[in-house]
Amino acid sequence: MSFTSMWADLEPIGRDAASGGYRRYAWTSQDAVLREWFAGECQARGLDVSTDRAGNQWAWWGDPDAAVTAGDPGVVTGSHLDSVPDGGAFDGPLGVVSAFAAVDALRDKGFTPSRPIGIVNFGDEEGARFGVACAGSRLITGALNRLRAAELADADGVPLTEAMAGAGIEVDHLGRDDEALRRIGSFIELHVEQGRGLVELGRPVGLASAIWPHGRWRIELAGQANHAGTTRLADRRDPMLALASVIVAARSEAAKRGCVATVGKLRVEPNGVNAIPSQVTAWLDARGAAESDVWAIAEAVGVAGGGSGAIEESFTPATSFDQALTARLAGVLDGAPMLATGAGHDAGILASAGIPSAMLFVRNPTGISHSPAEWAELPDCLDGVRALTRVLAELSG
Amino acid sequence: MSFTSMWADLEPIGRDAASGGYRRYAWTSQDAVLREWFAGECQARGLDVSTDRAGNQWAWWGDPDAAVTAGDPGVVTGSHLDSVPDGGAFDGPLGVVSAFAAVDALRDKGFTPSRPIGIVNFGDEEGARFGVACAGSRLITGALNRLRAAELADADGVPLTEAMAGAGIEVDHLGRDDEALRRIGSFIELHVEQGRGLVELGRPVGLASAIWPHGRWRIELAGQANHAGTTRLADRRDPMLALASVIVAARSEAAKRGCVATVGKLRVEPNGVNAIPSQVTAWLDARGAAESDVWAIAEAVGVAGGGSGAIEESFTPATSFDQALTARLAGVLDGAPMLATGAGHDAGILASAGIPSAMLFVRNPTGISHSPAEWAELPDCLDGVRALTRVLAELSG
Repeated sequence: MSFTSMWADLEPIGRDAASGGYRRYAWTSQDAVLREWFAGECQARGLDVSTDRAGNQWAWWGDPDAAVTAGDPGVVTGSHLDSVPDGGAFDGPLGVVSAFAAVDALRDKGFTPSRPIGIVNFGDEEGARFGVACAGSRLITGALNRLRAAELADADGVPLTEAMAGAGIEVDHLGRDDEALRRIGSFIELHVEQGRGLVELGRPVGLASAIWPHGRWRIELAGQANHAGTTRLADRRDPMLALASVIVAARSEAAKRGCVATVGKLRVEPNGVNAIPSQVTAWLDARGAAESDVWAIAEAVGVAGGGSGAIEESFTPATSFDQALTARLAGVLDGAPMLATGAGHDAGILASAGIPSAMLFVRNPTGISHSPAEWAELPDCLDGVRALTRVLAELSG
Repeated sequence: MSFTSMWADLEPIGRDAASGGYRRYAWTSQDAVLREWFAGECQARGLDVSTDRAGNQWAWWGDPDAAVTAGDPGVVTGSHLDSVPDGGAFDGPLGVVSAFAAVDALRDKGFTPSRPIGIVNFGDEEGARFGVACAGSRLITGALNRLRAAELADADGVPLTEAMAGAGIEVDHLGRDDEALRRIGSFIELHVEQGRGLVELGRPVGLASAIWPHGRWRIELAGQANHAGTTRLADRRDPMLALASVIVAARSEAAKRGCVATVGKLRVEPNGVNAIPSQVTAWLDARGAAESDVWAIAEAVGVAGGGSGAIEESFTPATSFDQALTARLAGVLDGAPMLATGAGHDAGILASAGIPSAMLFVRNPTGISHSPAEWAELPDCLDGVRALTRVLAELSG
């Protein structure tokens, strides 16, 4: 199967006709089709597929456990197949398809790996359905524990564990999976770039230096429910005015500090055309190179909201990818440029768990991601496959 | 039944234990209990209850059709029993309970009306479920026609006609109801004040002069869906920034013109914590003494949104109550003060249809309405009943 034919097979799965975007949510029927596709690609190459305790799918060229016993575990590559709501075609699938294509290229050359090569499809990377990003990698590293996982449910109230059990995962075994982890000598994730860094550098492929620290906060803006037609302006406590201040403060503080900040989600109560809201809740997502800057944005936004400040929902410190590994890859790739990113990835979760990890980025001409406008040109994708092929040869040769 | 015992009977119906507010939506089981209560109060007084083509409930002391034939139709009073989400106890029910109490007072005095007195419970005044306020009075006057009514549905997709049919209304007969209308020689609606006008005047009861012109607009703010972590500020088209401008413009333009303006409802797509929105929709409600000021607010807000402007969803011109009737009432009520209001009422719908109509307001110490904090002190409520009793005696004597 060539890169383009694998791509064509994936293209219709979970695509929404109206938006042109993908709705590939974890543990749904669409997800099952994607997992069957992954298993079929493995079987077509004579590779057995196994699942770990979190349902992530693995295929190995070579014996991963013999390599563990020999003290020289394998090289893993891959990504994920799920999407955000109305997401693009590349975020996730490009890494999985490129993994198969790179293994095919090595085999076509008659390459014999001296240590096993694994291909992985991580489940539930986007967290679109149950709210926790990178749930598959977080579960096997223990970053998401069993008790917290058991509390997660989707918007219809379906628990994560019920959805996983429906897909055939034995949820009684959820938890850190040392057997899966010890097989990973190093992890390389190829991913479409989610910005315009490579466009500006004029390069098709780059390497990740770090994932920015990243926080999410909730800001509760209290008002006084009242009639929109009869309440004088002077008598109002209208939380929409505080919301306007929050939005402006998030943008201006981020601009001042060279960070990014987004108010992307709101809840308004009662959300009636003729009612002054009793409550507005805003969510702030802030990321930047330095933790101190990210905290300062949350502080400024909390002050702008005028209430009890910004309430932390999550905070992820900076993730540095393995410097020695990344330097080795830069050498193999003729000095590919290094880029920091504001996005979280399974590679970041594994890096935080102490597994030597690195990422390759493929140029995205729109710079847009999590949208149908997300894009990569075919020649750049094939450059990505060639780069990944050279990296796998280096690390398993 | 005294005023206080009627009030106590209504108190638990449709009350939400958590919010303390009322959820009495049209054509629900709660509404059915309220309608049974109304019918029971009529029967306890020996008054027959009938429903018009829109399901509004009517009871007559005297023969309304004989009065029509004699060219001297009756005097009607009443209001509604439904509520907004988490609304107060007074908006609507105070007018209905006061109507019964005023009729009781006339009877206790041995008063014999020279023209019939009607008591009405208008259905679906708040429009909380199907989105059209004063649906009961709009239907019988033809302001809401049968075709448009047939298109209305609640948030669960239940059509208005299906909900009405479920409550026993013959929806094949929906439409203007001349038989009901011609029985109304004049209409007097007593209502809790929805502002602090009477508090500042130190008076328990007032009269309505007019209902302000009132418009609702939708403002579509287009953005570019993108990743919150990886998209540089310079590369963003974030509609939340336009929303902040819209909110600020609505408030400042309304303040400048002595009007009220509210952004009470928002829709954000996709409304994800880590996604720059592709679209934000805001709804503007603006009201003021002059139509030109209300239009100017919509214009300023549309400009602030930066897109295609404010899209009109509804516009209601100023409603003047009957001046001769209101002057006559002011005489009976020892020069009760006159107040304009920004709220719509069934009395305004009937006035617009050419029926001589007037309103009495009862002091609200909080000035708050459409909220559990809506209030009127019992002595003020009883002053309202006495005022209504004098008005009915004047108009039917």
